[in-house]
Amino acid sequence: MIDKLIEKIDEKKAPIVVGLDPQISMIPDHIRKESEEKFGSTLEALAESFFLFNKEIVNKTCDLIPAVKPQIAMYEALGVPGVAAYKRTIDYCHDKGLVVIGDIKRGDIGSTAGQYAVGHIGSIQVGNEEIKPFDTDFVTINPYMGSDAIKPFTDICKTHDRGIFVLCKTSNPSSGELQDMNIEGIPVYEHVARLIEKWGEELIGSCGYSDVAAVVGATYPEMGEELRAKFPHMFFLIPGYGAQGAGARELAGFFDKNGRGGIVNSSRGIIAAYKNEKYASYGAKNFAEASRAAVLDMKKDLEQAVG
Amino acid sequence: MIDKLIEKIDEKKAPIVVGLDPQISMIPDHIRKESEEKFGSTLEALAESFFLFNKEIVNKTCDLIPAVKPQIAMYEALGVPGVAAYKRTIDYCHDKGLVVIGDIKRGDIGSTAGQYAVGHIGSIQVGNEEIKPFDTDFVTINPYMGSDAIKPFTDICKTHDRGIFVLCKTSNPSSGELQDMNIEGIPVYEHVARLIEKWGEELIGSCGYSDVAAVVGATYPEMGEELRAKFPHMFFLIPGYGAQGAGARELAGFFDKNGRGGIVNSSRGIIAAYKNEKYASYGAKNFAEASRAAVLDMKKDLEQAVG
Repeated sequence: MIDKLIEKIDEKKAPIVVGLDPQISMIPDHIRKESEEKFGSTLEALAESFFLFNKEIVNKTCDLIPAVKPQIAMYEALGVPGVAAYKRTIDYCHDKGLVVIGDIKRGDIGSTAGQYAVGHIGSIQVGNEEIKPFDTDFVTINPYMGSDAIKPFTDICKTHDRGIFVLCKTSNPSSGELQDMNIEGIPVYEHVARLIEKWGEELIGSCGYSDVAAVVGATYPEMGEELRAKFPHMFFLIPGYGAQGAGARELAGFFDKNGRGGIVNSSRGIIAAYKNEKYASYGAKNFAEASRAAVLDMKKDLEQAVG
Repeated sequence: MIDKLIEKIDEKKAPIVVGLDPQISMIPDHIRKESEEKFGSTLEALAESFFLFNKEIVNKTCDLIPAVKPQIAMYEALGVPGVAAYKRTIDYCHDKGLVVIGDIKRGDIGSTAGQYAVGHIGSIQVGNEEIKPFDTDFVTINPYMGSDAIKPFTDICKTHDRGIFVLCKTSNPSSGELQDMNIEGIPVYEHVARLIEKWGEELIGSCGYSDVAAVVGATYPEMGEELRAKFPHMFFLIPGYGAQGAGARELAGFFDKNGRGGIVNSSRGIIAAYKNEKYASYGAKNFAEASRAAVLDMKKDLEQAVG
C-alpha cells in the first residue's frame, strides 16, 4: 500500500493529506439546515452534516491531493451515527480515488488488536461474502503495548496490502513527557522507531519504504531530520503543519534527497479555511472553494521545502 | 464515579468486572440462527448476535457483579453495526444497574482527545437536549502522548462524575518492551504511574481512591504489589486473570489491607465458560448459566486473595 500512496503523491505532485476532522463549529449554516430538515434535532442530523461537509471538500480537492485522513474521534463524538458518517466518508473518498488513512490510534493486546485490525484494514467472512467493515487503506497505531499489539496489523498488511503508521514522536506540546525520556542516551521515541523498523522489515515496497510507517510531528523538526537520516526505509506521516504551528521551512529535513519519504497532514487549516481571514472572502457558502485555495497554497508552500 | 464503583463492589462482595468481549466463535448456534432469521447473512446479524449473547450473560450474572467492561475492538470488528451493538450493550447494562467501563484505550492530542471524551464519557448539546453519545461510566486511556491527551478526560470526569483507567503496566507478554525500560533506575510504567497520580490528585473520592485510576496486569504481580505500596490513592483495573494465566494467589498484593483498591477483569473465562471443559455440561443452550457458575467460582477464588 505504501507503493500506491507514493505513486499517488508523485502523480499529484503533492505530499499532502487532508485531515477530514469536522467539528460542529465548522459546519456552515446551510449544511446544518439541510441536515436538520432531513433528521430534525438529532445526532443523525449532526452526523449527516459532517458527511455533507466532507463530501463537498473532497469534491473540490480530490484532483489535487493523493490522500485524506479522517480522524475517528470527531465522529465518535457523535456516537453511533457519527461512526456511520466516518464509514460513509471513507467510501466516498475511495470512490474519488483517494488513499484513506484512518486516524484511529488504536493499541491493545494481541487478540484484541487482531479485532481492531480486522475491522479497520481487514475483512470478515459473512455467509459467502468477504466484507471489509471499515475498509481504510492505512490506520494509525499506538505502540505503548509493544510487539504483540502490532503483529495482528502487520499480518493483515501482508494479506490485504495495507499499511500502518505507528506513533513515534507526536506533534503535541506534552509528547515529550514520555517520548523524550532518555534510556541509556536514547530517547523513548527512538527506541520506538527501532521497533517500527523491525516490525516493517518484511514489508518494504518497491519504492524503498515500508508499509509499517511512523507518525512524526512537524513541530519537532530536529527529531524528524535525525529520524530521516537513521531510518531510510521509514515513511513519515507528518501532522502539526499549519494550525499546530509548523511551517514549510521546518519540513525539509523529513524528506529524502528525492523529495520523498513523507506526507504532511493539514486538517483545520484546509477544511475550515473559510474561517481564516485569508480565505474569508469565499464566505460560508463557498467553504469548499476556500479549502481548495488553501490546498493550492499549501502545495506551493511545500514545494519550497521538498523541491 | 470511583466511589460508586467501590460501593457496588462492597455491596456485591465481588471485585469482579466481566469483560463483554464477544467473538463470532463464541456465539451459540441458536443465537446465530435467531439473528440470521432477522437480518440474513449480514454484519447486522452478527452484531445482533453479539448483543443477544451479552444480554443473556448480563441477565444471568448482574446480581453477582458490580461492573462490566465491553471491549470496543470486538464490536469495531463488525463495523458500524458492531459499534451500534456496543452502544446497545452499554444501555442494557445500565438498565441492569451495572457500572460500565468502556475499554477503548484511546489516546490523542488535546483537541482530538476532547472529542473522544465528549463521545464516550461526556455529552453534547443537540437542540434543547443534552445527549450522551456512548455514555460509559469509565473508559480506558493510553498515556503515550502525555498530559494534554489526558486533560480533556479529567475535565469531563469532574463535570460529569466519570472516571478513567490509564494504561500503566499492561498484561500482555510484550508490554515490557517499552513499559519496563529503565530511566534513571525507574521503569517507564512507574513514570507513568507518577503521571497518573498527578493527573488524579484533584479527583480523590471519599473512598480514598481517585477517579483517575490505572490498568495493571494480573500477570505482573510483583509490579502490582510495588505500585499498590507506592500509590495509595490509585485504584487498579486488573486484567489478565484466568485466560491470560494469572490466578488468585498472584492478586493479593494488588489490594489494600481492607481488601479494596482494585477490580479484576475476566472476559473469555466467564463469557465463553460453556466452551471450557469444566462447565461443558451446561451446553451451548445454557451458556449464560455456565457464565454464572464461572462468576461464582471466580468470586470464591478471589475471596482467598482479597479476604
